[in-house]
Amino acid sequence: MKLTVLGCYAATPRTLTNPTSQLFEIKNQMFLIDCGEGTQVQLRKHKIKFSRINHIFISHLHGDHLYGLIGLISTFTLLNRVNDLHVYGPKGIKEIILLQLKASASYTSYNLYFHELESKESELIYEDDHVTVRTIPLAHRIYTNGYLFREKNSQRKINIDEVKKYDIDVCYYQKIKNGGDVVLEDGTVVDNKLLTFNPEPEKSYAFCSDTVFNPGMVPLIKNVDVLYHESTFLESEAHLAERTMHSTAIQAATIAKEAEVKHLVLGHYSTRYASIDAFKEEAEAIFPNVLLADDGISFDF
Amino acid sequence: MKLTVLGCYAATPRTLTNPTSQLFEIKNQMFLIDCGEGTQVQLRKHKIKFSRINHIFISHLHGDHLYGLIGLISTFTLLNRVNDLHVYGPKGIKEIILLQLKASASYTSYNLYFHELESKESELIYEDDHVTVRTIPLAHRIYTNGYLFREKNSQRKINIDEVKKYDIDVCYYQKIKNGGDVVLEDGTVVDNKLLTFNPEPEKSYAFCSDTVFNPGMVPLIKNVDVLYHESTFLESEAHLAERTMHSTAIQAATIAKEAEVKHLVLGHYSTRYASIDAFKEEAEAIFPNVLLADDGISFDF
Repeated sequence: MKLTVLGCYAATPRTLTNPTSQLFEIKNQMFLIDCGEGTQVQLRKHKIKFSRINHIFISHLHGDHLYGLIGLISTFTLLNRVNDLHVYGPKGIKEIILLQLKASASYTSYNLYFHELESKESELIYEDDHVTVRTIPLAHRIYTNGYLFREKNSQRKINIDEVKKYDIDVCYYQKIKNGGDVVLEDGTVVDNKLLTFNPEPEKSYAFCSDTVFNPGMVPLIKNVDVLYHESTFLESEAHLAERTMHSTAIQAATIAKEAEVKHLVLGHYSTRYASIDAFKEEAEAIFPNVLLADDGISFDF
Repeated sequence: MKLTVLGCYAATPRTLTNPTSQLFEIKNQMFLIDCGEGTQVQLRKHKIKFSRINHIFISHLHGDHLYGLIGLISTFTLLNRVNDLHVYGPKGIKEIILLQLKASASYTSYNLYFHELESKESELIYEDDHVTVRTIPLAHRIYTNGYLFREKNSQRKINIDEVKKYDIDVCYYQKIKNGGDVVLEDGTVVDNKLLTFNPEPEKSYAFCSDTVFNPGMVPLIKNVDVLYHESTFLESEAHLAERTMHSTAIQAATIAKEAEVKHLVLGHYSTRYASIDAFKEEAEAIFPNVLLADDGISFDF
C-alpha cells in the first residue's frame, strides 16, 4: 500500500506548492484521488505512467480538487490512450467535463465513464477481486465525499514445506488458499490449518478532505490503517476552520484518536503558514502517530 | 511595448514547458492573452501583480489556451480582487466558466464581464484613450481569433525650447499637442510645426495562434511592429501542419514577409522537438527578423 502525495495545499496553486491530488496504490491497482490544477505536471514530475491510471475519485467540485481533471482527460487523448477511464465524483462533474470537451471539439480516444454521486450515505462505489472503495460522506460547504479503500479478504498463505511433505498436487493449491482441507489418496484428511499461514491483515486507507470537524464519520473509518484528514488550519485559526468548514490539526487528531486508526496523515494546509511543522506538533498532543503530507512525498504502509 | 511569454508550447503542460499564455504591456496597460493550465503559477513565478490584469483575451477553446482561466478567475476571488475583469473569447466561454463557478458555489468578489465573439470578420473589441484591440479571424479546427493591439494616434510632442521662446502659457499645451497653432497676444500666428516634434510612430502587436497557413490575414496585420505567429511544426512535419490546421516555421515567416512586419516571434512549438533552434533557422530563410519565444522570456519593442 503506497500513497504518493502530488499536492496537499489548500486553495491556489503556487510556484512551490500544489493543490490536492494523490496517487494511492494497493494490490497493484493505482487510484488517483482529486485532481487540482497542475496534477498532470506533478504526475510527469514523479514519472507516473499515465496509462496506469484507470480510476479517478474526485471529492468535491471546488477548484483546488478539480481544475486539473479536464486537462488530464484531454492529455490522455493526446497520448492516444485506449483504456477505459472511470471518474467518480459529485453530480455535475460529467456536465463540466463534457461541456469543455464539446467546446474544444476534442472527443476522447477512449471510453470515459462517469459515476456521479449524490447520496448522503456511505456507498460501495468500486469493487474488484482485491479492493473495495466506499464513499465517506463529509461535511463541507458543498457536497463532498471522502473515499475508503480497503483490501478484500485475503486468501490464506500456503505453507509450502508442509504441502510438499504431504505430496499434495498443485491442482489443490487454490482450494487450500481458500481455506479448504485436503483428502489424501489414503483417505486421510489434512486440516487446512496445518497447510497454511493466516492471511495478511486487510489494509485500508481513508481519504477525508475537505471537511469540518465531524465525529459522525468515525464509525466509517474505525481502525483503518491510514487516515488522511485535512488540517487546513492551526488552533490559532480555529474560528476560520469553523467558518469555512475546514478542520484544524487538533480536530484531525481527535478524529484519528476516536477512530483508533494506526496512522494519521495531515494535509490541505492553508498557504498562510510559512512552515507546516506546527501541524504535527499540535496534532501529536492528541494522537501519537502523525505524518505530514507534503508535495512529492511517498509513504509505504 | 513589452511582451512576456508565460508559455508557448503546444498541446500539454509538462515539467519544463507551459501551454500558451502571454502578457502584453502597452501604454502601461497589461493584457493577458490566452490562459493554458498553470498560467497563474507562471504569473507568480514572474512576479506579475495579479491586480494589474483587467482584460483577458482567449483565442479559442482548446485546452492549451483555456484551461488555466477558471483557476485564475477563482484565485482572483481568493485574493479578494475588487477590480472589474473583462474576458474576451469565443461564444461558449461564459457558460464554461459560470458552470464551474456555480458548481463550486464560489461566486466572484468582483464584476466579471464576458465579451463573447462569433464574428468571422475583424472587429474592434476594445478601445481606451491609448490602445485599440481588434480581432484577427484565424483558420483553425474550431472558431479562433488572433488579436491586434495598436497604439492610438499619439499626440505631437511639445518642443519646449520653442514654446518657451514664444512665452506661450501652459494652458495652450494640450491644444499644441493636439496639433493646433497658437495666436500670440500681438496677433501673430505660430504654426504648430514650429512648436512640436512629430509623434512617436504608433506601435502594434499581432498575436496569431492557432492557425493554418492563411494569407487572408495579411491585410489585417500589414506593417505591424511585432507579429507572434504560431509555428507548431518544422518543414519535415508540414503534412501534420496541414492535417491539424497548424503552421510551419516557414509558413509563419511567409506571412511575416508578405505583411512586411518588423519582427516575427515564433512559438506554439510541438513538444516533439528536442530543441527549438531549427524553427529560427527555417524561418530565417524566408524572413530576416525572427525571434524565438520561450517560456519566461520577455521582449521589449
